[in-house]
Amino acid sequence: MAPMQVMASGYKKEPRRALDFTINQSTPFNAEPPVTSLRDHFVTPNEKFYIRNHAPVPVIDGESYKLVIEGLVAKHSKFSIWELKNNFTQHTVMATLMVNSCLYIFSISDFRGIHDILLIILFITNITQDMTWYGVGWGCAAISNAVWKGPRLRDVLLSAGIEKLESFWDQLHVNFEGVDICKDNQGYGSSIPLHKALDKRGDVILALEMNGSELPRDHGYPVRVVVPGYIGARSVKWLKTITVQMHESTNYFQKKDYKLFLPEIDWDTVDEWWDKSVPIQELNVQAAITQPKNNEVIPRGSRYTIKGYALSGGGRKIVRVDISLDGGKSWTVANLFTSSQGLLHIDTKWSWEFWDCTIKSMPSPCQIVCRAWDEASNTMPEDIKQIWNLRGVMNNSWVRVNVVSDAAKL
Amino acid sequence: MAPMQVMASGYKKEPRRALDFTINQSTPFNAEPPVTSLRDHFVTPNEKFYIRNHAPVPVIDGESYKLVIEGLVAKHSKFSIWELKNNFTQHTVMATLMVNSCLYIFSISDFRGIHDILLIILFITNITQDMTWYGVGWGCAAISNAVWKGPRLRDVLLSAGIEKLESFWDQLHVNFEGVDICKDNQGYGSSIPLHKALDKRGDVILALEMNGSELPRDHGYPVRVVVPGYIGARSVKWLKTITVQMHESTNYFQKKDYKLFLPEIDWDTVDEWWDKSVPIQELNVQAAITQPKNNEVIPRGSRYTIKGYALSGGGRKIVRVDISLDGGKSWTVANLFTSSQGLLHIDTKWSWEFWDCTIKSMPSPCQIVCRAWDEASNTMPEDIKQIWNLRGVMNNSWVRVNVVSDAAKL
Repeated sequence: MAPMQVMASGYKKEPRRALDFTINQSTPFNAEPPVTSLRDHFVTPNEKFYIRNHAPVPVIDGESYKLVIEGLVAKHSKFSIWELKNNFTQHTVMATLMVNSCLYIFSISDFRGIHDILLIILFITNITQDMTWYGVGWGCAAISNAVWKGPRLRDVLLSAGIEKLESFWDQLHVNFEGVDICKDNQGYGSSIPLHKALDKRGDVILALEMNGSELPRDHGYPVRVVVPGYIGARSVKWLKTITVQMHESTNYFQKKDYKLFLPEIDWDTVDEWWDKSVPIQELNVQAAITQPKNNEVIPRGSRYTIKGYALSGGGRKIVRVDISLDGGKSWTVANLFTSSQGLLHIDTKWSWEFWDCTIKSMPSPCQIVCRAWDEASNTMPEDIKQIWNLRGVMNNSWVRVNVVSDAAKL
Repeated sequence: MAPMQVMASGYKKEPRRALDFTINQSTPFNAEPPVTSLRDHFVTPNEKFYIRNHAPVPVIDGESYKLVIEGLVAKHSKFSIWELKNNFTQHTVMATLMVNSCLYIFSISDFRGIHDILLIILFITNITQDMTWYGVGWGCAAISNAVWKGPRLRDVLLSAGIEKLESFWDQLHVNFEGVDICKDNQGYGSSIPLHKALDKRGDVILALEMNGSELPRDHGYPVRVVVPGYIGARSVKWLKTITVQMHESTNYFQKKDYKLFLPEIDWDTVDEWWDKSVPIQELNVQAAITQPKNNEVIPRGSRYTIKGYALSGGGRKIVRVDISLDGGKSWTVANLFTSSQGLLHIDTKWSWEFWDCTIKSMPSPCQIVCRAWDEASNTMPEDIKQIWNLRGVMNNSWVRVNVVSDAAKL
């Protein structure tokens, strides 16, 4: 890659951003929209899309930019934006991306006992002590849905001659590296199994557009791979190089992050577990309550509509969302609807599902609990303690929101 | 189908079966091997494979048998066994099948409170009252793994001209009906989405062989569809007709069975929910402890190896099995191994995983708990009460086995 393509500017050339975002980290910039605005749009406008960066946003010259395809392909290739747009059929994919370190346990305060408090202290201590650690605390609004457009990764790989290796396809991986310089002086990186990239129904694309516009700089201009159904961490932004290889990515963010451990593994004992554990790829089943907020005061005696979202990974649809008004003792079924705002010709299997549940009269005080089920009969665990892990990833324990009615509060 | 193919013989012509099976129902025959023998073979010998029947085993004349392909295909077709074997490439698939109504809660006795006892009484009452109800109580050994061989369903459908409808593929279903006469005077039936049937990586085959032998009568002679990664109920035996159609199967076993409901839905309130709920297709993440048995007495102070199996649906591999010796307060990681007995050239993504966990000295008394995780970060729920459903299907709550050491017992 020619050096002129990327200017090292530190944090001096960051894009303008929405003012109402909750900023979880300012450098690198990590922020999420207000929870209450999540349900305003089924397809999130670009300026409302959560932002997850690991380094300064690269300043890339689109004119000189070339995407490199290398590794186990018949011919190493370079593609300009023009070539990616004009030499390949353009595909449109609606896909929800989500941050996977959902530490909104801090705001839920449903902990029981000293064990959890110790875990949190340990966690915060480590953030402070180890500045090379890349974790960020997130709320439940670090999720957004967009319509992405660009060539299929499959077509680009086939044009580079991947079919010559067909008998090895099941053992190969596609490695992505971004232009952004993060850990170990490397670009942010990740890999996915080649079969996901080659599966037409897998819908992996090299996105050049996001909701009909050129990719915004915060979302990977000029090219971001979008890997639907996988955790957001695999949809690498500011793509520099795509490599077909025999092994998974050795990048920090594949080898030493986004892995699940037993609750008892801590920073002192984790070392041996990085290699023993597999990288997280597909998302598990997730849900959140976007209305009401925790500790909200609800008008007494009137009908009230609880709202939220749910989604699962791997293209598995949400088939049921259960709501409880008594902390999980009894349940009712929420109403699911996929509102695609005139985009009904687009497959929604990679998108979130919105749900509503109208209550005639809210008990007070009340702990609203929500859990979702996907079409493979996966559901969310009751107790966060049982799935707690060092990096707080893939937390999908029951969502709990406490409310009181106004009269009860008086 | 010519009438000579099937003889109506009631239960007079049932096959010979292993003597050590636990018989959960004798007519129709439903039985599972001893839990302790499950781990003897990674590939279950045919005579040790669990048996799940809904009617007398049909007596089918293989010479005159023809499989019918009809519905939305360019040409309706009939295939003899010889044609299925010689006109199509034969594929070998290792796949674990499992019964999905795992009611082994009866033997675990970890219930708390009257609510559960009422549910069980209600359940048993309904079995007795309604003889048309097809549920059977099963233990955790209603699972077996075999190597199946036959043509891909994909190839058979393509030979019948399914490619003419390519733009509708995502909306079509493949319906299977068996020869066995069950509910409503129909053969046992089910359907799967067409895309599962057409996906080369989906490995759906029309099995003519099971572990190198002609299909045994109890397992679907002469042809059984094997749908890897789905619940066993979709792998229809004694196949009579395959129909490509616009809608899911309307057969009793797709419409009125194998669906998940809220814990509070009972036989009085279920009617509206059959249509509102989707049929279960992919299996969820499951595990069992095969050694020790519940209430077993363990030699005190000596090393002991806990053993079991785990599996998940949709080709999702098991990535971790956690073992607790204190009822789920603390955990250790079990050792996973896939022993394929010289069959390592066969993909194991559709098979169960065996695991071991060696304990230096077992506490006494001790509740051993086991839970598994699949590669999409799905795990098993802690409490069966929270996922209880009318038909007891897809129970994958934590597995609990209570043991004492011999000295402690004295």
